Amino acid sequence: MAIYKQVTIIGFGLIGSSIARIIKRDQLADKLICGDVSDVVCAKVMELGIADDATTDLAQAVRGSDLVILAVPVGACGEVARVIGPALMSGCVLTDVGSVKQSVIAAVLPHLPQGVQFVPAHPIAGTEHSGPEAGFPELFQGRWAIITPLPDAPLNAIEKVTQLWEAAGSNIEFMEPRRHDLVLGITSHLPHLIAYTIVGTASDLEDHLKADVIKFSASGFRDFTRIAASDPIMWRDIFVNNQDAVLEILQRFTEDLTGLQRAIRYGDGQALQDMFARTRAIRRQVIEAKQADYRYPNKPAADVPQPEAPRKASGSAS
Amino acid sequence: MAIYKQVTIIGFGLIGSSIARIIKRDQLADKLICGDVSDVVCAKVMELGIADDATTDLAQAVRGSDLVILAVPVGACGEVARVIGPALMSGCVLTDVGSVKQSVIAAVLPHLPQGVQFVPAHPIAGTEHSGPEAGFPELFQGRWAIITPLPDAPLNAIEKVTQLWEAAGSNIEFMEPRRHDLVLGITSHLPHLIAYTIVGTASDLEDHLKADVIKFSASGFRDFTRIAASDPIMWRDIFVNNQDAVLEILQRFTEDLTGLQRAIRYGDGQALQDMFARTRAIRRQVIEAKQADYRYPNKPAADVPQPEAPRKASGSAS
Repeated sequence: MAIYKQVTIIGFGLIGSSIARIIKRDQLADKLICGDVSDVVCAKVMELGIADDATTDLAQAVRGSDLVILAVPVGACGEVARVIGPALMSGCVLTDVGSVKQSVIAAVLPHLPQGVQFVPAHPIAGTEHSGPEAGFPELFQGRWAIITPLPDAPLNAIEKVTQLWEAAGSNIEFMEPRRHDLVLGITSHLPHLIAYTIVGTASDLEDHLKADVIKFSASGFRDFTRIAASDPIMWRDIFVNNQDAVLEILQRFTEDLTGLQRAIRYGDGQALQDMFARTRAIRRQVIEAKQADYRYPNKPAADVPQPEAPRKASGSAS
Repeated sequence: MAIYKQVTIIGFGLIGSSIARIIKRDQLADKLICGDVSDVVCAKVMELGIADDATTDLAQAVRGSDLVILAVPVGACGEVARVIGPALMSGCVLTDVGSVKQSVIAAVLPHLPQGVQFVPAHPIAGTEHSGPEAGFPELFQGRWAIITPLPDAPLNAIEKVTQLWEAAGSNIEFMEPRRHDLVLGITSHLPHLIAYTIVGTASDLEDHLKADVIKFSASGFRDFTRIAASDPIMWRDIFVNNQDAVLEILQRFTEDLTGLQRAIRYGDGQALQDMFARTRAIRRQVIEAKQADYRYPNKPAADVPQPEAPRKASGSAS
């Protein structure tokens, strides 16, 4: 049953096009409009039939919509808000999907007219694939969707965004924007930065060595290549926009790494062993929190097929 | 059909007990003996029925065997060789499974009597689980087994070890010990060190923040916790024994990370984007090398079940 009259999604990449597929599947809106600055994307969206209309004119795209979803890289949110702001109708709820909240809020709010409510959100889901073809409606199933309402947000506006993520099958959590940025800085942004770095370091190796690194990547390196294959522009924007949290946690990481480096250099096996034993406890807690399944080590519990299957070898080979 | 008269495996952890299960399954040996310094492990092995005999007396364990497999942490190989050396029969082939080759060779060779051939090997497979119950015979299926023969090794000794890994279903590669240590330093040891560090950094967070990190670990952090849950003693030994290669590649990594840190601090989005775009190419090459499957991003092609299944969301969420 339609819960929105007209929805506009700005940006039809992996996330935007996955949301569109959910809205279509569940008939959540009487009309769904695609706004994307790329006419190639707009044509593709119409070809795929995942929106009723598509236009590169973003202001035109949002006119008359009661829900507008920004699904562009976080660095573009401010500029998009500037362009669409005057065209947003009173009573419209604006939301986003960005991995950073404080800087997006700061960039978007000044452009919103009276009567428009901004309810920031962040679905924690993704693949390393990009573009409108990459989306699929199960992307958010069983994943967290974090909503970070502003202090003065009316409940009915929050409810409109909550309903979207409930339809997507997500587990919904409310959080303050500042805390969101710190937690994601640790759980997502730093791991991605590290993965990008290690894959980058490998790509600078001499060619004959690089060939062997690719050949034997299953021994640990492969997991990093997957993470480091994510959308470059999206991640550029995340790091620039969550600078404070990322630099803070990166500093702690570097200190810890330097400590381990010293232990290796001086052959201090006890220090290494103590550290490695300590990190096992965290894995147990992640499993207990049902964020992983011991049989399918890299899939959250929700993804695991029901019939029992033999345990597979995983990437933690030496 | 039996290709060995009597095989002894020293150390019945994940790797040793998986090899034992293959030897039993395929009846590769007339007799299979477990040598393990833990009487608890020996009792467990007999209970599981994965060896014909088990003893904590390692010298006794190897007497009369034509193939002896060291499946202990690399740091223990020298001491085990010292203990079993005098009991090895002439014509015996000794092999190992360690993730470092040069230091194991240097530690083992001095203890071997005339007529005993050492053919070092390294199966690139594992899970984050340890102990004799954790093993399973499919562990090495479709994985690489790297054999690093010494320059004077006779072909029939190499063949004896090759046959074992063929039975395990591994893809066999021959390599010089020095090159093995460098390649594995990059593809395996550094990624594990980084994963241990990042999980350790998170475990030092204030408790309320740590709880949220565990809760939202699916956004990237989770993959690192799995890698960092591997056996602490095994990994302590790897880092101490592959010091030179690990420190060399760690130095390059740190330089690269410092460069990215600077780009984040000064908001240099272009430098970040260039770097992130570059790493995508490596992922493509890993996929082309059939070390990953796009539908099951963390499993090598050989693990993928045959029927087509819908693509799942993976961990590269933001």
